Amino acid sequence: MNCLEARIVKDGVVKEGNVLKVDSFLNHQMDIELLNEMGKEFYARFQNKPINKILTIEASGIAIAYAVALQFHVPVVFAKKSKSINISGDTYVAEVESFTHKNKNTVVVSKQFLSADDHVLIIDDFLANGCALQGLISIVNQAGGTVEGIGIAVEKGFQSGGQIIRNMGYHLESLAIVESMDHTTGKIEFREQA
Amino acid sequence: MNCLEARIVKDGVVKEGNVLKVDSFLNHQMDIELLNEMGKEFYARFQNKPINKILTIEASGIAIAYAVALQFHVPVVFAKKSKSINISGDTYVAEVESFTHKNKNTVVVSKQFLSADDHVLIIDDFLANGCALQGLISIVNQAGGTVEGIGIAVEKGFQSGGQIIRNMGYHLESLAIVESMDHTTGKIEFREQA
Repeated sequence: MNCLEARIVKDGVVKEGNVLKVDSFLNHQMDIELLNEMGKEFYARFQNKPINKILTIEASGIAIAYAVALQFHVPVVFAKKSKSINISGDTYVAEVESFTHKNKNTVVVSKQFLSADDHVLIIDDFLANGCALQGLISIVNQAGGTVEGIGIAVEKGFQSGGQIIRNMGYHLESLAIVESMDHTTGKIEFREQA
Repeated sequence: MNCLEARIVKDGVVKEGNVLKVDSFLNHQMDIELLNEMGKEFYARFQNKPINKILTIEASGIAIAYAVALQFHVPVVFAKKSKSINISGDTYVAEVESFTHKNKNTVVVSKQFLSADDHVLIIDDFLANGCALQGLISIVNQAGGTVEGIGIAVEKGFQSGGQIIRNMGYHLESLAIVESMDHTTGKIEFREQA
């Protein structure tokens, strides 16, 4: 059991509707020591890749991306969510539908900060059906860059997002893959990882 | 000239309407080495305070707060912006008007993560007229906590926000205080700091 799985068992809260609350340590209050450990774990899994940039999406991906960038010594770019259809300037744009909030967001990255020369590690906090991630992949592809890998903190293994991304040949690593959770007992089962 | 001032001179872009673009190193693409240096600079300025928590606001405050927390070894809480008037659960709420976007946001922090025991360092990227900062101060006050200090990356010294906050007795430190900028020449003048 890695640092994140152990912390989810200790402080994660399972809510009705397959909701896993990790906001006491990951995405509202953030335990910096835990994030540093997660950064090291992601580094161990992707260190053989020629990564020169981390791409994430605001807001809760930013801290994890920072922790990873501390290990790789590369810049972080965070995609911005916009409600606006008036995207100004030279930007890559992808439309993303949130599983949690059922709304559509336009995800935007300035063309200045991603190019065909970039070898990108995409980082995000959650992967469920994978819409946000698909938007980030689309943006790297629009730039002509290379997705070297995808690092996720918590994957909901009982939803299709991770499988689809792996089927497409991407190197996807999730620190914790939740196979099942039960809000009546609070019990969480993780997928075994090598 | 500190690390941030030097970087603004090198890579900041002055736009019409007193807009300073720092998105190539601070709030879209982020230079992690620069942020680490900024974290150390904030630590030097606030290390004598009994700080046990960093409070910031999504999205562009998060990375700076992370860098500061790396020095203080304390958790970060980031306030969330919400368009919704239906705030669920036990939350502290403040209404914030954005100078840049001319819109109102509801800023929310879960009551779980701030209490009367907390000695808080507030961190944000920009201070202009100070509405976002006023909202964060309001939230710490609602919790009964203590604002031990306020650390800002870039303060627009020609707007009133910083002066108002200092007049109210808060210990406010801004790494770069822009006294004037000229979009026709690109010239930026900083306030001298001891």
